[in-house]
Amino acid sequence: MLRFLTAGESHGKALVGIIEGLPAGLHISVDEINRDLRARQGGYGRGARMQVIEEDTVEIVSGVMRGKTIGSPVSLLVKNKDWQLRNEDQLAGITVPRPGHADLGGAVKYGLQDIREVSERASARETAIRTAIGSVAKQLLGEFGMTLLGWVLEIGGIRCGPVPLDLQDLRNAVDQSPLRCADPSVEKPMMDAIDKAKAEGDTLGGVFAVLAHGVPCGLGSYVHWDRRLDGLLAQALLSIPSVKGMEFGEAFANSAKPGSSVHDEILYDGVFRRKTNRAGGVEGGVSTGEAILVKAAVKPLPTLKKPLNSVDIYTKVPVVAHYQRSDVCVVPAASVVGEAVVAWVLACAFCERFGRDELSRMKEGFQASLDRDPFTERLE
Amino acid sequence: MLRFLTAGESHGKALVGIIEGLPAGLHISVDEINRDLRARQGGYGRGARMQVIEEDTVEIVSGVMRGKTIGSPVSLLVKNKDWQLRNEDQLAGITVPRPGHADLGGAVKYGLQDIREVSERASARETAIRTAIGSVAKQLLGEFGMTLLGWVLEIGGIRCGPVPLDLQDLRNAVDQSPLRCADPSVEKPMMDAIDKAKAEGDTLGGVFAVLAHGVPCGLGSYVHWDRRLDGLLAQALLSIPSVKGMEFGEAFANSAKPGSSVHDEILYDGVFRRKTNRAGGVEGGVSTGEAILVKAAVKPLPTLKKPLNSVDIYTKVPVVAHYQRSDVCVVPAASVVGEAVVAWVLACAFCERFGRDELSRMKEGFQASLDRDPFTERLE
Amino acid sequence: MLRFLTAGESHGKALVGIIEGLPAGLHISVDEINRDLRARQGGYGRGARMQVIEEDTVEIVSGVMRGKTIGSPVSLLVKNKDWQLRNEDQLAGITVPRPGHADLGGAVKYGLQDIREVSERASARETAIRTAIGSVAKQLLGEFGMTLLGWVLEIGGIRCGPVPLDLQDLRNAVDQSPLRCADPSVEKPMMDAIDKAKAEGDTLGGVFAVLAHGVPCGLGSYVHWDRRLDGLLAQALLSIPSVKGMEFGEAFANSAKPGSSVHDEILYDGVFRRKTNRAGGVEGGVSTGEAILVKAAVKPLPTLKKPLNSVDIYTKVPVVAHYQRSDVCVVPAASVVGEAVVAWVLACAFCERFGRDELSRMKEGFQASLDRDPFTERLE
Amino acid sequence: MLRFLTAGESHGKALVGIIEGLPAGLHISVDEINRDLRARQGGYGRGARMQVIEEDTVEIVSGVMRGKTIGSPVSLLVKNKDWQLRNEDQLAGITVPRPGHADLGGAVKYGLQDIREVSERASARETAIRTAIGSVAKQLLGEFGMTLLGWVLEIGGIRCGPVPLDLQDLRNAVDQSPLRCADPSVEKPMMDAIDKAKAEGDTLGGVFAVLAHGVPCGLGSYVHWDRRLDGLLAQALLSIPSVKGMEFGEAFANSAKPGSSVHDEILYDGVFRRKTNRAGGVEGGVSTGEAILVKAAVKPLPTLKKPLNSVDIYTKVPVVAHYQRSDVCVVPAASVVGEAVVAWVLACAFCERFGRDELSRMKEGFQASLDRDPFTERLE
Repeated sequence: MLRFLTAGESHGKALVGIIEGLPAGLHISVDEINRDLRARQGGYGRGARMQVIEEDTVEIVSGVMRGKTIGSPVSLLVKNKDWQLRNEDQLAGITVPRPGHADLGGAVKYGLQDIREVSERASARETAIRTAIGSVAKQLLGEFGMTLLGWVLEIGGIRCGPVPLDLQDLRNAVDQSPLRCADPSVEKPMMDAIDKAKAEGDTLGGVFAVLAHGVPCGLGSYVHWDRRLDGLLAQALLSIPSVKGMEFGEAFANSAKPGSSVHDEILYDGVFRRKTNRAGGVEGGVSTGEAILVKAAVKPLPTLKKPLNSVDIYTKVPVVAHYQRSDVCVVPAASVVGEAVVAWVLACAFCERFGRDELSRMKEGFQASLDRDPFTERLE
Repeated sequence: MLRFLTAGESHGKALVGIIEGLPAGLHISVDEINRDLRARQGGYGRGARMQVIEEDTVEIVSGVMRGKTIGSPVSLLVKNKDWQLRNEDQLAGITVPRPGHADLGGAVKYGLQDIREVSERASARETAIRTAIGSVAKQLLGEFGMTLLGWVLEIGGIRCGPVPLDLQDLRNAVDQSPLRCADPSVEKPMMDAIDKAKAEGDTLGGVFAVLAHGVPCGLGSYVHWDRRLDGLLAQALLSIPSVKGMEFGEAFANSAKPGSSVHDEILYDGVFRRKTNRAGGVEGGVSTGEAILVKAAVKPLPTLKKPLNSVDIYTKVPVVAHYQRSDVCVVPAASVVGEAVVAWVLACAFCERFGRDELSRMKEGFQASLDRDPFTERLE
Repeated sequence: MLRFLTAGESHGKALVGIIEGLPAGLHISVDEINRDLRARQGGYGRGARMQVIEEDTVEIVSGVMRGKTIGSPVSLLVKNKDWQLRNEDQLAGITVPRPGHADLGGAVKYGLQDIREVSERASARETAIRTAIGSVAKQLLGEFGMTLLGWVLEIGGIRCGPVPLDLQDLRNAVDQSPLRCADPSVEKPMMDAIDKAKAEGDTLGGVFAVLAHGVPCGLGSYVHWDRRLDGLLAQALLSIPSVKGMEFGEAFANSAKPGSSVHDEILYDGVFRRKTNRAGGVEGGVSTGEAILVKAAVKPLPTLKKPLNSVDIYTKVPVVAHYQRSDVCVVPAASVVGEAVVAWVLACAFCERFGRDELSRMKEGFQASLDRDPFTERLE
Repeated sequence: MLRFLTAGESHGKALVGIIEGLPAGLHISVDEINRDLRARQGGYGRGARMQVIEEDTVEIVSGVMRGKTIGSPVSLLVKNKDWQLRNEDQLAGITVPRPGHADLGGAVKYGLQDIREVSERASARETAIRTAIGSVAKQLLGEFGMTLLGWVLEIGGIRCGPVPLDLQDLRNAVDQSPLRCADPSVEKPMMDAIDKAKAEGDTLGGVFAVLAHGVPCGLGSYVHWDRRLDGLLAQALLSIPSVKGMEFGEAFANSAKPGSSVHDEILYDGVFRRKTNRAGGVEGGVSTGEAILVKAAVKPLPTLKKPLNSVDIYTKVPVVAHYQRSDVCVVPAASVVGEAVVAWVLACAFCERFGRDELSRMKEGFQASLDRDPFTERLE
């Protein structure tokens, strides 16, 4: 079982992550992790803090020797460049919970007297370390020919038109877009919408997609509910702050269609293939061999300059919620985090199927699975 | 940690479930479980088998003495009234995987030579035992004033209009509907659509909702991604066969709106409340104290009389997929399963917060949490 | 991750077990499981109930088709031939906890008012289903050339002398002994001691060993504490009722010796071997490739005809503990259970290293690991 | 579920630990952690490196605000003062596995070409961070009146005589002893034995004890094997490098005695008590309310100046094992680690029973459990 823990507050010293269970022999590129951290920090509509922090960079503290994993836990550190909690004792307590945040629920749950003690951890800042961890997962998947891409489909109700079908073209389009949006024709309207929301003290949400290409058939399982790949991916996506819904492919639209136009017929041309991929790459909790395609609905950020009504938790007097300098739109960033968490789930499922002690042995087993037809012998 | 395992094939002897970690002192009503099993089997559009099996009933094998749990694992048995695998050796092997099922992925994963060895477990028959387990979870939640209801919002693109706001009215409407649909005005069109699909050898999907009423604030947590209540609920829903998407409240629609019209302002009238519940009862991974409301997109069943193209796994010759007597529409049944899996997740989160050794002690702790304001003391 | 849950009370309807995560394609012999169940019930010194129940037999409810596993959860049922709880309501409550049992701790923990509600589950009867589960694990290990044997080293202070070094000779000696003791010269004294204890209303404990032969090098891991094979084996052994201590090889005796006479020098004769096996087959949490040898200290049973002082939990009046018809010595039975739990731990560790989807693929990977020298290439 | 992960190599930058699931509101003293780290580094018989590193100190990176936990993961850093892997590329590879270490098994498992890649993580250096984590667990337990002490019973076959019965006296004796040995009369002989072993290039093992005082009745459970407190403690102890055996109380000696002299009769004097504590504080997998007392057998260190025979993994030529500057006797240090790991297991079991969201609420529940007799009402 591959597993990880993260720690760290938004304005604390650093974010920390430990990954346990990686195979030995995996080359880990710090540059690639930093590239993903940078992608997460970008995107039109990010607030001032992202510019202050400028550039997150990761430090690998353990688990790597001579550039490669050795089977031992890999620990990662992302320092906070604006470590404010240094003087935490002098910070005034916050007593008004912000709607749309964990503020009230968290304070009730943990009996916390200063809402800052909730928001410091509940902050989406934590996704920086998860992005770093997902980046390591992507590097593992990359050894087996899998590639992932997260990008923006919709912002503030403005939806992309058709995007490049070729993965490399799609990636280029996404990388060049300030919004990680693959349809240049909607970029200007999206940015205008963000500017307008900003001017009005408002925020915008949207929808992002994550595509995982090259995923072999047979990851996940139908044999027990908690091993289903669809469930695991759903959990991962909904664990991203602000994500409130998800679907495989066009699941909501497909639920209105007859079965005859929803399923993916099976072909054989040397390998088993599908005529279509409406299932989004998972059937019965198991990967089909087609690309995994998931979409996630991101709510508009709840930290508004045009503030929402709330109540002081002590005095019970109605007041407006505290405004903390914030972003207007984080859908592009969320798509990067989405890519990371999908990578993590796939890496777990891949290691479960192909082993996790040693990369070279995993490669042998994987290659063997590609080289042979599992159904060569006739049914007895 | 509350946990369970299930076992059992669709046409095997029985489905088996073991629940470990229930508090002692919980009265378990077999009748209530059977009522849920019956609800799962009903619904306009179910096929012949549901009538053959007629009525699933549960047998509690262990963990209950004098009607109450004793802290020990509770095991449940649901016998298959049409145990066909009795003569499994005489059954011909199936060699053509059905699109939309785990057939191909499962056979590849486990190296199975007869697709029946996949489909027997991947079948939605397994949800009968999960429904029973969820029913136990609901009985636990019921001790703390929580009630759950799953119902149908949409079938074949036909969508409910406004439904009763009062929970009891809603429940009555759902219980009286052959489609578990709370809007009588769409029942006839939905049934017509099902009849038409049946006549055409086709199937229909739809959307269901699950509402959990009375859930206290503070279940789940933002402190680690895998403890978020939203992620856990998403996993549970997506682990139901045929469910391909989910959202909290109107998450997809809300993702197109500005933040100022999406969040739920905080009031205080003796307790903290919300003016609206657009979040569907979860903020930042933690329950808000408002009702949990989730929706799930159910794909139309992939077992079609109008068969889909596939390939024989041995000969590689294109053939049409095997048709097994099946249902036309399972959205009503899925809504019952949805209720069960949501109950399970909430029971786990509730036990994590309020303990799980003994029901009476849990009640004391829960009552104490209701009786006091956690913020009585001023911030130091 | 291989996992299982068990359920069932001592005098309830049945014991139930579900194993999740077994590879597909494993032939499971019900006869072998029944043989192990029989071995567990035997042994000089067992009480009357064992004769009443006579012979536990297992029923496989699911997860096996045509004699082989299919990847789905395997569920097992062992019916209780003297199902007394049928009329549980008429049974008088027990209010005096027996020293040496979970009675008092269990009643306090779960708030139980009748100690029977503790003892029904805390009873060693539960080890019957664990023996069945361990028997399945042994069958899996057997596919890879591993064999296990549990036997008695000491009863009531009477210790075996030298036993056969050859595994088959050892197994024969154990199978022929009414005490599962491999040294015929101590059998008579042991049986005399048991007779004497019985006559005095007393009980006897002892020490058993479990040997696992053919375990490949590299199971378990040092990279994280909870993956160490030594820790996992220790937990498994101490989870057997009445086991209160364990050691690898002669660990307690070795702790008094200098390092130069405790460690196992490394040789090479085509494969890496050890000159000795004082480590009991595990170094640094990883299997060495030598046989795993563990020993466990079994306390004398606490259910004595010569009763111990206790207190009524309601009246607080001192009384002597309830005597339930019981055994005089269960060390032989415990050695069978020990064999089972060690098999389980090794099966988990083996599957972790060599996969768990499909037996034939596991065999290929295992054979490849035997066929090659992992160190053929020179250090760069 | 309380959980932690650790990372870090022996000569890497730092050891890292993340604890997830601690209650909010726990004051954490860095000084106390450092005191435990110091205790672990001490002990007559430690080698030169301990003096080089001088004094491990912990840095809390996250999870604590204003000195108290906030429910968020607590991350800990212990820097290595002699970070040698800084120039890892220039270090020559090690090709001769040392008997008694994970060297060979680890290299085989992970396919590592340089044994240093095993030994850096398999090193007992990792126990520094586990000691820090256990220290946090002790601080949590301390809030509920529990205190723990690990000390040395035996070194090189020289065994303590009677030790102070009073916990504070015992602690004083242990703290003042260079060997953490509570019987001053054996200190000199022990130190002489260590000196002699050192002079001979040999090493010494021994036995340590851990006592946990004030543990309430009802921690752990008999209802499922993997929840038994005895099994969990056994795993924790055997996961300490060099520990090869363990027992509760005098389990091995008791296994030779009749039942009538092994069990602990139950008294009542306002609370339930035991006349003796031969069980070592656990019956049937549940804490009895008496002190937990466990003992562990520590093997003599395998890194000997008088080297053991081994084989070069590449050339297969017999050579003597690499000698790395090392300690002669680590039993005192192991007793500190033992205290830490026992604390961890007890903290988990305590949180499972009394909750883990908020310290003040846990205290209320705990106090309530002390204040009332769970058996006040008569059996219906």
